[in-house]
Amino acid sequence: MINIDRENSTPLYMQIKTQLKDMILTGKLSPGYKLPPERKLADILNVNRSTILNAYRELKADNLAISTVGQGTIVNPALGSVANINNSNITPIQLPWKHLYSKMMSLSSDTITQDILELANRKDVISFAAGIAIPELNPLEELKKINEELISQFKHVPFQHTSTQGYYPLRDSIRNLMQKKGIIISNDEIMILSGSQQGLDFSARAFINQGDIVFTEEPSYFCARQIFEAFGANVIGIPMDDDGMSMESLSYMLSRFKPKFIYTIPNFHNPTGITMSLEKRKKLLALSYKHQTPILEDDAYGELRYEGEQIPSLKALDQNNYVVYLSTFSKVLFMGLRIGWVAAPKQVIQQFKVLKQISDVHTNSFSQWCLDRLIRENNYSNHIQTVLKENKRRRDIMLNSLNRFKPQNLEISWIIPEGGLYIWCSLPDEIDQKELMKNAEEKRIAFVPAKVFYSEDCDDNCIRLNFTFPSPNQIEKGIQLLMEAITDSYKEKQNEANSYTEIKPIV
Amino acid sequence: MINIDRENSTPLYMQIKTQLKDMILTGKLSPGYKLPPERKLADILNVNRSTILNAYRELKADNLAISTVGQGTIVNPALGSVANINNSNITPIQLPWKHLYSKMMSLSSDTITQDILELANRKDVISFAAGIAIPELNPLEELKKINEELISQFKHVPFQHTSTQGYYPLRDSIRNLMQKKGIIISNDEIMILSGSQQGLDFSARAFINQGDIVFTEEPSYFCARQIFEAFGANVIGIPMDDDGMSMESLSYMLSRFKPKFIYTIPNFHNPTGITMSLEKRKKLLALSYKHQTPILEDDAYGELRYEGEQIPSLKALDQNNYVVYLSTFSKVLFMGLRIGWVAAPKQVIQQFKVLKQISDVHTNSFSQWCLDRLIRENNYSNHIQTVLKENKRRRDIMLNSLNRFKPQNLEISWIIPEGGLYIWCSLPDEIDQKELMKNAEEKRIAFVPAKVFYSEDCDDNCIRLNFTFPSPNQIEKGIQLLMEAITDSYKEKQNEANSYTEIKPIV
Repeated sequence: MINIDRENSTPLYMQIKTQLKDMILTGKLSPGYKLPPERKLADILNVNRSTILNAYRELKADNLAISTVGQGTIVNPALGSVANINNSNITPIQLPWKHLYSKMMSLSSDTITQDILELANRKDVISFAAGIAIPELNPLEELKKINEELISQFKHVPFQHTSTQGYYPLRDSIRNLMQKKGIIISNDEIMILSGSQQGLDFSARAFINQGDIVFTEEPSYFCARQIFEAFGANVIGIPMDDDGMSMESLSYMLSRFKPKFIYTIPNFHNPTGITMSLEKRKKLLALSYKHQTPILEDDAYGELRYEGEQIPSLKALDQNNYVVYLSTFSKVLFMGLRIGWVAAPKQVIQQFKVLKQISDVHTNSFSQWCLDRLIRENNYSNHIQTVLKENKRRRDIMLNSLNRFKPQNLEISWIIPEGGLYIWCSLPDEIDQKELMKNAEEKRIAFVPAKVFYSEDCDDNCIRLNFTFPSPNQIEKGIQLLMEAITDSYKEKQNEANSYTEIKPIV
Repeated sequence: MINIDRENSTPLYMQIKTQLKDMILTGKLSPGYKLPPERKLADILNVNRSTILNAYRELKADNLAISTVGQGTIVNPALGSVANINNSNITPIQLPWKHLYSKMMSLSSDTITQDILELANRKDVISFAAGIAIPELNPLEELKKINEELISQFKHVPFQHTSTQGYYPLRDSIRNLMQKKGIIISNDEIMILSGSQQGLDFSARAFINQGDIVFTEEPSYFCARQIFEAFGANVIGIPMDDDGMSMESLSYMLSRFKPKFIYTIPNFHNPTGITMSLEKRKKLLALSYKHQTPILEDDAYGELRYEGEQIPSLKALDQNNYVVYLSTFSKVLFMGLRIGWVAAPKQVIQQFKVLKQISDVHTNSFSQWCLDRLIRENNYSNHIQTVLKENKRRRDIMLNSLNRFKPQNLEISWIIPEGGLYIWCSLPDEIDQKELMKNAEEKRIAFVPAKVFYSEDCDDNCIRLNFTFPSPNQIEKGIQLLMEAITDSYKEKQNEANSYTEIKPIV
């Protein structure tokens, strides 16, 4: 049944293997079928025994055949089902999956976070899109040392389960870090999360019923809005001033709506880079008390101040335990470890513990042990200093590049952020962002357009540019190319406008 | 203002520090307040300058004071809020948190998983309660080597983000492992999860609307029921025979109800240890096709067969892509890494990816790289062999201990599991499980009572005993103590019954 083509460039053993494979997968050779002994098949096909040996070896590597004692090589009996499928003449019964999904799925289909992360992996693209810290700064040698020490000293213990609330020493280390920022809480008020995204998820789960209202800054972090909406929230955006969320608007909206909570990113806001003034923070707390509305404070970027004075967080200023505070290590080191935390009143932590139990039981133990060790050995604060210095340098390179390459004839401006990861760059009204994305893509430049940060259509013609993930050279080159793309988009628009003028009938 | 008590055993510097601390925390010394120069305060208090130096050092260690250039030591300005709290005369405004929680929270308040895990950490307790693999078997040296190699070879890359669907090489390794079990799928049909618990969470989110019905075996894994109920499902339990879910019952119930999916643990079922027969698996699939109802197959224990023949999984037998298959590495190695996976039709994976993005973005990267390496270097299959051997040994020790210590006068029986982690042990009707738990607790023995595995009141007087987490010595000792506790409970009941008879009035 096996045909050998000696003039084909495919090696003989592969020809034999492929044909045997086809026979197995189409069910001509049943699971458990005893293949001919090697010598016998070699004789039949007039090839060397080693050729058959190789063919069988390949089949075994594919798990299509196995060696047995006594029976020689047989078709893998575990393959039963495959042969059945191919043997059977039954028409497949399709399941109408799409009609089985929950309402939640229809409320959250956006894949923007994944798409941005995938894009960051492409070597041919300069990506200003992702919110990723400088990868090369991670204290690898320290971590390697800690890895070794933990395994030598504690054996299997760091790989066992940890408490659902998180590894206690790490909670204590975090308490200590927070205390340095004026947030005085106990370890019971801290819970370790699998990234601060999980804190957004738990906040949504713990508080949002279908139809509830949530306030966020407008624009705001898209994945926060997405998760609130997934649980059925009606997300209302509050406009921003130069120094954070408009308190006038907030006050006005609070007199009309009763949001479950107010979500805010007070430090180096995503996407605008704006930092909320101390005055506004106090006002926000006062409004929160007055309207008995909790605040969800997302402080993912709090560590990353490059200039100006640190402003106390809402959690530090809060006198009545109204603030649920989220933060993460991912924006300063080892983002792939996915370790964040929440600081909240004990009773909220109790609810989050139930949610943690049913969603992932606890966060990766070994990574919790490693991070704790890193913080305790003071490598962490040294590391933060390194990060601040290099982040600032890249921010300044981007600011300089923007100034240098900005087309003189166009109104392009940007907010200089005192920290964080992003520059929010405003383009002239004439630029169509869809067109611009096309032009930028041709030049292999990625950024995030304003619209993804808005809950509804926006006429904010801004783009978000990250200055930490690309290298300094990439920043310079990338901004130059981006400005060229902007110029191209502008010219196309002008040409369109002109051609439109030309064909305008004279009535 | 500072009082020194030279006869007190507390060192002078601590006395000074404590009093300064109190003054700071009560707001008597405001944030930014300049503390007296060390020499000056030493003179005033008539102590050595080093005493003041030490007191200030302690204050700084507590972040209550900081050193400044020019101003010397000042009260930490970041402490603003603390002082405010203590200074202010405002009555605290309590937030009525409990009225703000979502419906989901009222549907899931059970903390049993966390409680069982916490219990497993207690050195004074022999715990048969947790479903934890033998900790000492983890291939630590191999992992240590892999850790070092990955860091040396790939630097920061394994600590960066990975794709939301999971690290591609690990998906490929898992595809290969599954192929060996007759599950032939592509890498696109696999997604890495933060433990298989996350797969239950995503299944609930993706499919369940308020009021939907879900079928499970009865009894079944409590945390699965908990998560389905959290999303508003009405969970209906299908009784079990000796060879798995009753197909008669299932068929009958499917003619009355339209469940969103059927949840099953076909291999070494939790808690009963029962394995579903091949015949039933085929019948279950046939019913699933007939009623167009997907199956959620939880194969957490599938690798752990100690005797008898491997039966193909539902996923392997499924000819129409109706099965969403969950599994995990946690029951065979490094449970603290929390790596599981789902194998499902591509369109379901697409939905899960959206859920993954909004719940934790992606699973811990470094752990994914490590596990992949472990599997590729074939340490994994060696490791499984070691685990199987030692697990079987412990199972047999427990079975022997049960036989040896079982009170002769009591009807105690158990199911001998062919694999997995649990022995389901049936007690005489006379034993009250609440009483037994008290008696066992006194002897520092933990187990899980039947009722937590049932969706409603049950008269199944069984307990679940895990035989992998405790050491062989602990198993023997623990079973002996448990049987004593059972005897005690029985005697108490007899005495009660007798005393009841005695006071029965003769009418």
